[in-house]
Amino acid sequence: MHKPALVPLALLALWLGAAQGNAAAAGDPPESPNIVLILADDLGYGDVGAYGARFVRTPAIDSLAQQGVRFTQFFASANVCTPSRAGLLTGRYPVRSRLAGDVIFPEAEYGLGEGEVTLAGILKAAGYDTWIVGKWHLGHTASAWPTRHGFDYFFGIQYSNDMEGVALFRNQEQIENPIDQAAIHARLANEGARLIGASGDRPFFLYLPTVAPHYPNVPGAAFRNRSAAGPYGDVVEEMDAGIATVIEAIEGAGKTRETLVIVTSDNGRAWDGSAGAARGGKAGTWEGGYLVPLVARWPGVIPPGVTTSGLSMNIDLMPTLATLAGARVPADLKMDGRDVSGLLLGAADSPHEALYFFTGDRIAAVRTQRWRYLVRTFMQVWEIDHLDPGYRHPLLYDIKTHGSELFNMAEKEPEVLNRMQSLLEAGRRELEGIPQHRSAWD
Amino acid sequence: MHKPALVPLALLALWLGAAQGNAAAAGDPPESPNIVLILADDLGYGDVGAYGARFVRTPAIDSLAQQGVRFTQFFASANVCTPSRAGLLTGRYPVRSRLAGDVIFPEAEYGLGEGEVTLAGILKAAGYDTWIVGKWHLGHTASAWPTRHGFDYFFGIQYSNDMEGVALFRNQEQIENPIDQAAIHARLANEGARLIGASGDRPFFLYLPTVAPHYPNVPGAAFRNRSAAGPYGDVVEEMDAGIATVIEAIEGAGKTRETLVIVTSDNGRAWDGSAGAARGGKAGTWEGGYLVPLVARWPGVIPPGVTTSGLSMNIDLMPTLATLAGARVPADLKMDGRDVSGLLLGAADSPHEALYFFTGDRIAAVRTQRWRYLVRTFMQVWEIDHLDPGYRHPLLYDIKTHGSELFNMAEKEPEVLNRMQSLLEAGRRELEGIPQHRSAWD
Repeated sequence: MHKPALVPLALLALWLGAAQGNAAAAGDPPESPNIVLILADDLGYGDVGAYGARFVRTPAIDSLAQQGVRFTQFFASANVCTPSRAGLLTGRYPVRSRLAGDVIFPEAEYGLGEGEVTLAGILKAAGYDTWIVGKWHLGHTASAWPTRHGFDYFFGIQYSNDMEGVALFRNQEQIENPIDQAAIHARLANEGARLIGASGDRPFFLYLPTVAPHYPNVPGAAFRNRSAAGPYGDVVEEMDAGIATVIEAIEGAGKTRETLVIVTSDNGRAWDGSAGAARGGKAGTWEGGYLVPLVARWPGVIPPGVTTSGLSMNIDLMPTLATLAGARVPADLKMDGRDVSGLLLGAADSPHEALYFFTGDRIAAVRTQRWRYLVRTFMQVWEIDHLDPGYRHPLLYDIKTHGSELFNMAEKEPEVLNRMQSLLEAGRRELEGIPQHRSAWD
Repeated sequence: MHKPALVPLALLALWLGAAQGNAAAAGDPPESPNIVLILADDLGYGDVGAYGARFVRTPAIDSLAQQGVRFTQFFASANVCTPSRAGLLTGRYPVRSRLAGDVIFPEAEYGLGEGEVTLAGILKAAGYDTWIVGKWHLGHTASAWPTRHGFDYFFGIQYSNDMEGVALFRNQEQIENPIDQAAIHARLANEGARLIGASGDRPFFLYLPTVAPHYPNVPGAAFRNRSAAGPYGDVVEEMDAGIATVIEAIEGAGKTRETLVIVTSDNGRAWDGSAGAARGGKAGTWEGGYLVPLVARWPGVIPPGVTTSGLSMNIDLMPTLATLAGARVPADLKMDGRDVSGLLLGAADSPHEALYFFTGDRIAAVRTQRWRYLVRTFMQVWEIDHLDPGYRHPLLYDIKTHGSELFNMAEKEPEVLNRMQSLLEAGRRELEGIPQHRSAWD
């Protein structure tokens, strides 16, 4: 068992700097904060008040943003559910876990491999209680079950709520089948709150991947027709109310200052909602397929009201939270994620030179802080391979200047294009060609 | 030969109303205005200054908008080139001309049918000189040639500028092959200006379908690196300068007050550019595939600085321009377009109860002034048929309230959904199942 380490010196220095500017931030930061990681399902970047939503109200998330940090260039590690979650929990590009071929369907007989090291696993090893309350979607065979991957406790569903046979489980026990779509949102929030309320002196990691707002959108009775944005808006508002419930539980347990709360999403908006200024959405390769909100609050450590545009991806959460929790990532584990605790604390610069974006198991785009080089796109029902010599038409976008993928700058920026192509080639050598699990019907 | 009629009384009344508010609008409107119809190729809705462009400058189009009317809910009749142009010139949904199967490729041996009645044809019959300067793309067989479809004169290219063998023609004579991509934009504008300068007393119809900004974007030397938006922005700015050249020619000929100038585009933005708030783009079925800018100036008739959100489509141009020109549409011709001269003059209400949007030869969406009911969509490389009983998931969007396709309101608005389904069924009965021409490789 690894003993929780002290908060790293660099972080502590940043914290002290922040604390000097904030009289309310008295007291030492805890060595091993509780971590509440809320992962929405298909939430649009633009459907959060703090990100400009006009028709959906999210006061709980907005309040976390006001009390903490808001990321404007944070990305899911895939444009669909399963691989994105694999990336988040392993800190590695999802292709490494062989889960980038497709989302896991009910008939699939594979899942997260037994040898995978997860965020839950390293936090558990560092002395945390580890709970998952919500949607797993990394396999529903015995060896892929969340309790085999670092979680002490599982309460939730095995895969997406639009799939056949989706059932509610407590650990290995099926307690409802099919799930009550209208009740699931409140049940998850209440279960999360219950666990927090019952927590003792040991630090806890609550991973709360919500069922909202993935289709079908069935709000609870109290939220039906509450929003100006249809059933999608209703379930986003219900999800936000669930976040408020969890935050109240943290406060009720007197653990506000020792708890880091993070809210993000698993991929960009699907059919409903707004991708903000980004182009495209779920399952596509434009930035809107991957761009997600992320807000984080840790009173006394993260300064309030900060916005960062530093480039980051959900694969960064494992090394970052490991740092903050004093947990140890095995030294021989090849990580793609980086420690972005500096960004959490308001620093501007990302540790990433570049990030890779996949469609299935192939790289679709390379992103730096300023540029996005897009090499696989779709027009109507045709996938157009911009690396194909027959269709050589490199797409290079200046995100920093134009705000999104608007104008192809490839011809005007040959040196940038060269550098991006080198990054792409390096990424392809390392990350393409890894055999992926596939659904039986593939 | 049909003698040009007087400007219709209702229009004259509107004109007089407008003229009362504008001292500069003295004099009678001409009975048969010259018509300059400029059709951009793949121009993004959001890439015109008057429509919010931030990185592309279009002072000529903006100036037309200031002096005339700007449409905010104007649509191409297809999400790709060939069928959109068929709709524009015939006033009918492109399926009726059997050109909705695909765009016309160089090897195709079909085109606009000999029996089709075009806008050029009815204007010619009404006494107009009729010229096309630019991209035809309605067939390059002898019988499909523009001079067989109502145009006295053709100067331009037979199909898209990214296709093999694209050549410059004067009437039937090939004068350059392949075209000089950097020179074509100025050549078209200058040819249009030349024709206007040489025009006599007869009214003229100049149809000017530009080669810009369709890929490849090769600006003339004077425009290279002029914009902040890459080669795409450069060719949009060069196209705009070409429009300025044409407008100067009108002024130089002393025909400003007797000339109606219209600028629009053939479909939404393709790879480059902005669809404004709309979702998607060219070849897709979201509104961004069809939404295009339209500005129109006719000093003394169209009041200046007006914006209309009245629903309209390029199939409306034939009946509208027929009205304004006193030309006659054959009484036995089934038209889908409506006379929207009221919208040109600033009225708010569209004569359309609904408009249909196609992908290929199948209806993808039905639109009313407020609602958009979307029944065929694409997710990554899969086309998802929302009419398929196995995937019944009606998508109903409240465009008026939300500004674009954001939130599915189908469950909340069962009565609206019913009405839209009825409209869809009526449209399917009349407009689906018409055999379409196909490229040989289909």
